[in-house]
Amino acid sequence: MKKTLGEIAQFIKGELIGDASLEIRGVAGLAEAQQGEISFLANSRYKNFLKSTQASAVVTAEKIENSSPLAVVKHPNPYLAFSQIVKLFYPERKDYPSEIHASAILGKNLKLGQPVHVGAYVVVEDGVEIGNHTTVLSGCFIGEKSQIGENCLIYPNVTIRENIIIGNNVIIHSGAVIGSDGFGFAYDGKTHQKIPQIGNVIIEDEVEIGANVTIDRAALGSTRIGKGTKIDNLVQIGHSVEIGENCILVAQVGIGGSTKLGKNVTLAGQAGLVGHIDIGDRVIVGAQGGVTKSIPAGKVVSGYPAREHHKAKKLEASLSFLPAYIEKIKRLEKELGELKRKLQKKSK
Amino acid sequence: MKKTLGEIAQFIKGELIGDASLEIRGVAGLAEAQQGEISFLANSRYKNFLKSTQASAVVTAEKIENSSPLAVVKHPNPYLAFSQIVKLFYPERKDYPSEIHASAILGKNLKLGQPVHVGAYVVVEDGVEIGNHTTVLSGCFIGEKSQIGENCLIYPNVTIRENIIIGNNVIIHSGAVIGSDGFGFAYDGKTHQKIPQIGNVIIEDEVEIGANVTIDRAALGSTRIGKGTKIDNLVQIGHSVEIGENCILVAQVGIGGSTKLGKNVTLAGQAGLVGHIDIGDRVIVGAQGGVTKSIPAGKVVSGYPAREHHKAKKLEASLSFLPAYIEKIKRLEKELGELKRKLQKKSK
Amino acid sequence: MKKTLGEIAQFIKGELIGDASLEIRGVAGLAEAQQGEISFLANSRYKNFLKSTQASAVVTAEKIENSSPLAVVKHPNPYLAFSQIVKLFYPERKDYPSEIHASAILGKNLKLGQPVHVGAYVVVEDGVEIGNHTTVLSGCFIGEKSQIGENCLIYPNVTIRENIIIGNNVIIHSGAVIGSDGFGFAYDGKTHQKIPQIGNVIIEDEVEIGANVTIDRAALGSTRIGKGTKIDNLVQIGHSVEIGENCILVAQVGIGGSTKLGKNVTLAGQAGLVGHIDIGDRVIVGAQGGVTKSIPAGKVVSGYPAREHHKAKKLEASLSFLPAYIEKIKRLEKELGELKRKLQKKSK
Repeated sequence: MKKTLGEIAQFIKGELIGDASLEIRGVAGLAEAQQGEISFLANSRYKNFLKSTQASAVVTAEKIENSSPLAVVKHPNPYLAFSQIVKLFYPERKDYPSEIHASAILGKNLKLGQPVHVGAYVVVEDGVEIGNHTTVLSGCFIGEKSQIGENCLIYPNVTIRENIIIGNNVIIHSGAVIGSDGFGFAYDGKTHQKIPQIGNVIIEDEVEIGANVTIDRAALGSTRIGKGTKIDNLVQIGHSVEIGENCILVAQVGIGGSTKLGKNVTLAGQAGLVGHIDIGDRVIVGAQGGVTKSIPAGKVVSGYPAREHHKAKKLEASLSFLPAYIEKIKRLEKELGELKRKLQKKSK
Repeated sequence: MKKTLGEIAQFIKGELIGDASLEIRGVAGLAEAQQGEISFLANSRYKNFLKSTQASAVVTAEKIENSSPLAVVKHPNPYLAFSQIVKLFYPERKDYPSEIHASAILGKNLKLGQPVHVGAYVVVEDGVEIGNHTTVLSGCFIGEKSQIGENCLIYPNVTIRENIIIGNNVIIHSGAVIGSDGFGFAYDGKTHQKIPQIGNVIIEDEVEIGANVTIDRAALGSTRIGKGTKIDNLVQIGHSVEIGENCILVAQVGIGGSTKLGKNVTLAGQAGLVGHIDIGDRVIVGAQGGVTKSIPAGKVVSGYPAREHHKAKKLEASLSFLPAYIEKIKRLEKELGELKRKLQKKSK
Repeated sequence: MKKTLGEIAQFIKGELIGDASLEIRGVAGLAEAQQGEISFLANSRYKNFLKSTQASAVVTAEKIENSSPLAVVKHPNPYLAFSQIVKLFYPERKDYPSEIHASAILGKNLKLGQPVHVGAYVVVEDGVEIGNHTTVLSGCFIGEKSQIGENCLIYPNVTIRENIIIGNNVIIHSGAVIGSDGFGFAYDGKTHQKIPQIGNVIIEDEVEIGANVTIDRAALGSTRIGKGTKIDNLVQIGHSVEIGENCILVAQVGIGGSTKLGKNVTLAGQAGLVGHIDIGDRVIVGAQGGVTKSIPAGKVVSGYPAREHHKAKKLEASLSFLPAYIEKIKRLEKELGELKRKLQKKSK
C-alpha cells in the first residue's frame, strides 16, 4: 500500500513541512527505516538518529532545524499520531474466521456470539457466554458460567476460571491466569487452613492483560480491573484488589490483597504494594518502589519504603555523600576534642 | 441454605451476643454484606465498616460496644472461624466426576486411582501414577514416571515434568511449571555449557502452589517443598532448594539454588534470597527484602540487603532525617572553624 | 553403566589422585552420594561435606589434604568437568521419536524437518518452518510464519506467536510466551490508545529460555536475544530490547523496552532495568539492582538506584553506622554549644 505524505499529514491532522506528493510505503523505527518509509521521534534520547536515518519523513512534536532532505510532519503527540499511521498501513489484528474449531470442547447452556472464533483445543465449560466478534485462540480454558463480552481477543493458552466477568474489547495475552484462588489461609496454631475463595474477578471494557499475568479471584465479592486499564506481563494482582480506570501497571508489578487504586494510577516496573491500602487517583509509583501505606491522590513516590519522589531523590543525593560526611564527623569530633583540651590547658 | 445464628456460633465454638434464632442465609465481606448475611472483622483497619455494614451478624475477636442491631459471635481467630462458616454455606470445591476424558492421551504402564478425574486434552506420559480422588483438569501435561498422590487438584494448563513426586491433598494452580530444568551452566571460557539437570522435585502433602509458579528440578537429588507450605503466584524456586513445613511464600518471591528454609518461614511479596544460604525456622523476611546471607531461627529481617527489622526501621527513620543532619554537619563545621579562628586571634 | 575412575579422569583431562581401577557407577551431590559414585566440590561453602561424604571420588580444583579414602580428580573447572561426567552417565535429553502426533493441528505451507517431533495437541499455523531434529512437545502453539531452527527443544505448553524467528539448538521451557505484544500505548488525553506491535522476536542459536518467561515482540523491527544467552524463569523482556551474546539473566529479571545489552552481561535475580538505556559488555548487575541509566562496559553495579558495587558496599557499611553517627552529631552539637557558652562567659 502507498500513501502520499500529504494524505498522511491530513489523516493525523499534522503540519507538513516538506513535499506533499512524496510516496510513503511503510513505517519503521528511525534506526531501521529505509527510503520511502515514515518514522517518528517521541523521545529526545533518539534525536541523534535524525541525522543518520534513511527514513523519508518523520513525525515529531519539535521543530527540527535543517531537517532537509527529511520531510517533517509536526504533531503535538507524535507517538499517538504515529500509531494511527501504523494502523493505516497494517491491519490492527489478524482476522480469524467465524468458526468453532471441531476440536473445541463445548459445555451445555452456552451463549455464543455471532460471529465468534473458538480455536483448536479450547475447553468451554457449562453456562459460559461469549459475545459477538470475540476470538478465543487455541488451548484456552474458560470455566463454568464465565462471561466474555464482545470484540475481545484471547490469545492461546489463557486460563479463565469459573464465574469470571469480562467486558468488551478486552485483550488477554498468552499464559495469563484469571481467577485463580486468592492466597488466603488462617493459621490454626498447627497448619495453614485454606480460606475458601468464592468471589470472582470482573474485568471491565478496554482492559489489556499481559502474558503470564495472574489475577486472583476474591475470597468474597470481586477483584475488579477498571475500564481502560492496561496491565503488562507477569503482573500479580491479589484477591479483592480494586483498580480504577485507565491505570498503567508495568511488568512484574505486584499488588497485595484488598488494596484499592484510583483512576489513572501508574505503577512502574517491579513496584510492589502491600495489601489493604488505598492509592489515590493519578499516583505514580517509581520502578521497584515498595509501597507500605496509603498514598493520597496526585503524589509521585519511589524507593523502598516508598517516599515522595522529590524527597527520595534528595535522600539519594545525600546518600552519595554519606561516606564523605562520616569522615567529616570523625574530623569534627577530633578537632573539637583538641580544642577542648587546649582550652582546658589554658584555663589551668 | 439457611442456618440459625445459634447453630453457627455452636459450630465454630464462638460466644454469641445476640439473637440465636436469627436466620443466616449467606456470607459476605463487611462492605458488601446484606441483611441476613454474616461477615467478619479480623483486621482492625476495617473497624469503621461495622457502623455501616448491612450484615446481620459479625464474627470478631474484640468486644464491640453498642453493636446492636448487629449480632456478634466472639471467636479468638475470626478469620479461621469465618472460613469454617464459608465452608458451611459453600462446597469447598467443585466435584468433578470420576472420568477420564476421551481426549486425554494416556501413556503405558499407568497407575490411575479410583475415582479419578482426568480432563480434556490432558497428556499423561508413560509410567505415571495418579492417586484416588485426584482431579487433573484440562490441558495439563504430566511427564514420564511422575507420581501424584491422593485427593490432589491440578487446575488447567499446569505442566509437571518427568519424575516429579507429589504427595496427597496438593493443589496446583493454572500455569504452574513443576520440574523445569535448573539454571545451571559452566562457563568454559567461550560459552555457557549446560549442566544436565537430572534430579527431581518432591512436593509434600498439603502444599498449595499458585498460578504461574516455577519450581526447578535439582541438578542432582531433589528440590523439596515441605508439608503444608503455601506458595502464592509467580514465585520462583531454584534447583535443589529445600523448603521446610508450613512456610508461607507470598507472590513473586524468588529463591536462589540450593538455599534451605526451615519450618514456618514467611517470605513476604517480592522478597529475594540468594542461593546457597540457610534460613532458620520461623524467620520472617519483609516485602521486597533482599537476603544475601544465612539467617538464624526466629529473626525478622527487611530491606536490601536484609537487616534485622528493628535495625532496618531505625535506619529508615535515620534516613528520613539524613538531609537535615547533613545541613547540621555543615553548620557545625562552620561554627567550629569560626570558634578556632576566634581563639587563634585571641591567643595572638 | 560403569566406568573406571581412570577412564573418567582421562575423559575430563583431570589429574587423578587415587585408584584408577575404581569402578564408578553414577554421580550425585556430596551430601547424597553413595559408595561407587563420584561427586564434585566447586563451591568452598560445601568443603565440610568432604569429611562426611559417602562418595568414592570427587572432582575439585583444590588440593585436598588427607582425602583418603576419597579419590580425587583435580580439574581447574570442576563444575564444568562434572557436567561432562554427568553426560557420560545420563543421556542429555530424552529422545522423542520422529513423529507428528495424530492430534497435532497443522496449517498450510509448512516446512517440517526430518526427523522432527511434534507432540499431542500442538497447533501449528500456516507457513511455519521447523528444522531437522527439533522437538515440539504437547500443547505448544506456533503462530503463522514463525521459523524454528534445527535441534531445538520446545517443552510443553509454550506459546510462540506469529513471525518469530528462532535459531538452532534453542531450548524453551514450559509456559514461556515468545512474541506477545509490546506494552505500547499513547495517551490521547482520555484513554490509552494501543500502539500496534508489528515487529517480531529473533532468538539466536544456543539460547535457553526458562519457564514462564515473557519476551515481547517489537513495535517495529525486532526484539533480539543474542547467541548463547541463557534466560532463567519468569524473566520479562520488553519490546525492542536487544541482548548480546552469552548473557546470563537470572530469574525474575525485568528489562524495559528498547534497552540494549552488550555481550557477557550478567543480571542477577530480580534485577530491573528501565527502558531506553545501554548496558556495556561484561557488566554485572547485582540481585534486585535497579538500573536507571546506561552503564559502561565492565562495571559491576548493585542497589537501588544501581551504583558501582564498591561504592554501594561502602555506602551500605556507612548506613549500618548511620544511627550511631546521628547520635554523634547530636553530641557534637551539644558540646560545641557548651564550649561556645563557656567562652562567651569568659570573654564577658
